[in-house]
Amino acid sequence: MQAGQRSDLRHFFEPDAIAVIASMKDGSGLGYRTITNLRNFGFRGRIYPINPYYDEVLGLKSYSDVTEVGEPIDLAIVITPPPTVPAIIEQCAHSGVKAALIVSENFAEAGGEGAELQRELVEIVRRTGIRVMGPNTIGIVNPAAGLITAPYYVSYQNVQRGGVAYCSQTGFVGPTAQPLRDYAYPISKTCDVGNKCDVNEVDLLNYLADDPDTRVVAMHLEDIRDGRGFIEAARRLVPRKPLLVFKAGRTEAGARASASHTSSLAGDEQVYDSAFKQAGAIRVRSWQEFWEVPRVFSSQPLPRGNRVAIVSHTGGAGVVATDTAVEAGLTVASFSAETLEKLAEMSFRLTTNPMDMGPILSVAENAFQIQEDGLAAALDDPNVDCAALAVYGGLEQLVSPMVEMFVRLMQNRSKTVVIWIYGMRLPAMQEMRRQLEAQGLPAYIDFETAMKALGAAARYVEIRREFER
Amino acid sequence: MQAGQRSDLRHFFEPDAIAVIASMKDGSGLGYRTITNLRNFGFRGRIYPINPYYDEVLGLKSYSDVTEVGEPIDLAIVITPPPTVPAIIEQCAHSGVKAALIVSENFAEAGGEGAELQRELVEIVRRTGIRVMGPNTIGIVNPAAGLITAPYYVSYQNVQRGGVAYCSQTGFVGPTAQPLRDYAYPISKTCDVGNKCDVNEVDLLNYLADDPDTRVVAMHLEDIRDGRGFIEAARRLVPRKPLLVFKAGRTEAGARASASHTSSLAGDEQVYDSAFKQAGAIRVRSWQEFWEVPRVFSSQPLPRGNRVAIVSHTGGAGVVATDTAVEAGLTVASFSAETLEKLAEMSFRLTTNPMDMGPILSVAENAFQIQEDGLAAALDDPNVDCAALAVYGGLEQLVSPMVEMFVRLMQNRSKTVVIWIYGMRLPAMQEMRRQLEAQGLPAYIDFETAMKALGAAARYVEIRREFER
Repeated sequence: MQAGQRSDLRHFFEPDAIAVIASMKDGSGLGYRTITNLRNFGFRGRIYPINPYYDEVLGLKSYSDVTEVGEPIDLAIVITPPPTVPAIIEQCAHSGVKAALIVSENFAEAGGEGAELQRELVEIVRRTGIRVMGPNTIGIVNPAAGLITAPYYVSYQNVQRGGVAYCSQTGFVGPTAQPLRDYAYPISKTCDVGNKCDVNEVDLLNYLADDPDTRVVAMHLEDIRDGRGFIEAARRLVPRKPLLVFKAGRTEAGARASASHTSSLAGDEQVYDSAFKQAGAIRVRSWQEFWEVPRVFSSQPLPRGNRVAIVSHTGGAGVVATDTAVEAGLTVASFSAETLEKLAEMSFRLTTNPMDMGPILSVAENAFQIQEDGLAAALDDPNVDCAALAVYGGLEQLVSPMVEMFVRLMQNRSKTVVIWIYGMRLPAMQEMRRQLEAQGLPAYIDFETAMKALGAAARYVEIRREFER
Repeated sequence: MQAGQRSDLRHFFEPDAIAVIASMKDGSGLGYRTITNLRNFGFRGRIYPINPYYDEVLGLKSYSDVTEVGEPIDLAIVITPPPTVPAIIEQCAHSGVKAALIVSENFAEAGGEGAELQRELVEIVRRTGIRVMGPNTIGIVNPAAGLITAPYYVSYQNVQRGGVAYCSQTGFVGPTAQPLRDYAYPISKTCDVGNKCDVNEVDLLNYLADDPDTRVVAMHLEDIRDGRGFIEAARRLVPRKPLLVFKAGRTEAGARASASHTSSLAGDEQVYDSAFKQAGAIRVRSWQEFWEVPRVFSSQPLPRGNRVAIVSHTGGAGVVATDTAVEAGLTVASFSAETLEKLAEMSFRLTTNPMDMGPILSVAENAFQIQEDGLAAALDDPNVDCAALAVYGGLEQLVSPMVEMFVRLMQNRSKTVVIWIYGMRLPAMQEMRRQLEAQGLPAYIDFETAMKALGAAARYVEIRREFER
């Protein structure tokens, strides 16, 4: 890592001044929408609309090109027809614009003329030093800066802030394609690097290693252009924060599809696997895991080991959770004699791990108290490093009392927990999830994914130990 | 299969008269709630409350025991303290009650006295011929009969009717623990067999093979008591309808947990794997897949082969879907020259499989029409056996037009399709899912699971061919 690399991407993620170079047509112009999104999202820096056909856009003075602005510009968002883009980037470079994010499509991924235009961009980057993200990207969300670069309609004003940087090579990671808010993903940044003509995963790792808002990096990758650079950057990041990787283009057909949409050349799966091992990255195996597994790192302390307490409300779920826990590298904790004694006082049915609270909750007069005491006993056991705790979230009236119970429980405890919500009414379950996540408690609807998240947390602790040797 | 076996479970699933033997305390009594649920669910048969302390419950005459009823009873739902249960079952048998469903817990799964009580039940079953489901079960949901046996509060009056029988050894499959309605699972039956003191998975397979409402059986299993019986029953069912199996207790710790909640003895994983192969069952690998994979069989025709068309709205999702498709045993179809020509007329960007509609949809004036024409072209290709089709469901106003488009598209087409919904607003996505499912179109939020469902459909066709040889 050379000094100053972080600052390169700071202009992308934390700009003070943005030029939007795009159609400013009222309502539907992509530049018009971009500015609208920035304002709704709470961006407080300067915004310069750039379009020769307008004097004013949304109350802002519009300029015919960036050279006219006469003020420093950190980031240019460029959404113009591909043939016009190289000249615009050249102009940005000469006007001192530090960073350009090219949303426009039809470059290398389209082949032919588009590929030639992308080669021109690479040449300009090399010659002038301007940094370019894209083309073919929807760019960045940085809730701390009120930054959103997607030029499409975004229904929500903001997302749940948290510690996960979600990085990708596809716009599918973005705020129009994922219910970021409804799922309460705890987001520090999202970023789509698109065709990676300049900025790529190595730059992201270097920037995010130093980003104080980011506690974990989740990265969707179709290819890595610079294997050695990736491993070096990852090995600098991983001692500070975990790196989760979801590799797409694993199959031959997948790799071919990848080549046709970002001109990526996905390579040999074994080569990648070995690179990820050297990098200290943890692989996740699905798009769902890419989103869900990082939650646990956003707010939770790291576990001291891999011994898990599993509290379910049905025996059947406990068995499934146990299988998944073991398959994710966890060990089912043996409760201490003291814990067993405490639990036996409540009910002999609670003295196993997985602990099934169901029979007690359905008959006990003081079910809420027993639940809280049972969870506390499991969490306080010295043989327990982490815990997966079921909660019934199937009714609206349970949301507040259950959230309050968990907040109380975790106030003076520092074990790693994931909460798994089940029940009969999905809106109540989702609302409980949002409220728990807002309290820094990672909450899952799919309990097997919750177990995998704990497994990843325990695995990360091992990786850090290996790195320290 | 002996003749008449089906009728054994018909008394459980399609009773004309039910006795509810339980607490009838106003509002909170488990019998009171069971009767309330039955009425809300639309059960139109006779209901007999059985409780010596009441003359009338919810406007129904109450009896002190079943012998007093004097009318034929198909099913007794028993929710009384365990020590009282054997005598009650004995009484049921002597009064001609055909089937008893024992909801009460604390039998074999609790060990000690409970285990002894369960042995008594087994003895009564053998001696009298009464059939018993449970103990330790929440029983059955059969929407066609308005039947629900769970004694807990159930917020919805009914579920989405469809072709999937969800069978389980845990109450976690039931209407209080899963958002059956919100997820629009297409349900023919749900059934928890609990401790399996009598009725078990073999009976279920025999009954469901002949059940005209069931097009696919999804089975969660912790153990199989009678391996040979299971294989025989499965081999009778599988030529008619697919059997999907989710095996829990795969790990040693999971098997131990299983023993402590239903007294199941989970066995060697390889033995199970071989039994499932002989049975022609398709294994699913997670609780989520257990619920989601069967959807495709509920309404869709079987594919002729495994060649899939993938239509995504982002290149990145297309790559991920392709990987999953290949890993699920599908082959990415090569579009015919004719199809390629049709697609090229719309845009050269559409002439690949996976087909990425994103670039067209974001710029085209007539995006809806292009989407419909593009999907039609892919579906009509003779090289395509099945298709996974992305749809943007992120905004409320898109729900109706998109559902209508798919209904139109599938009206005169008979390829196997799954629809994958993505977008930014979860409530809109879930609503689209419910509406599509109501139209007999399997809809997924997680697109990798959608691909796995198509893979299972193609696999089932292979299994049937193998069975026919």
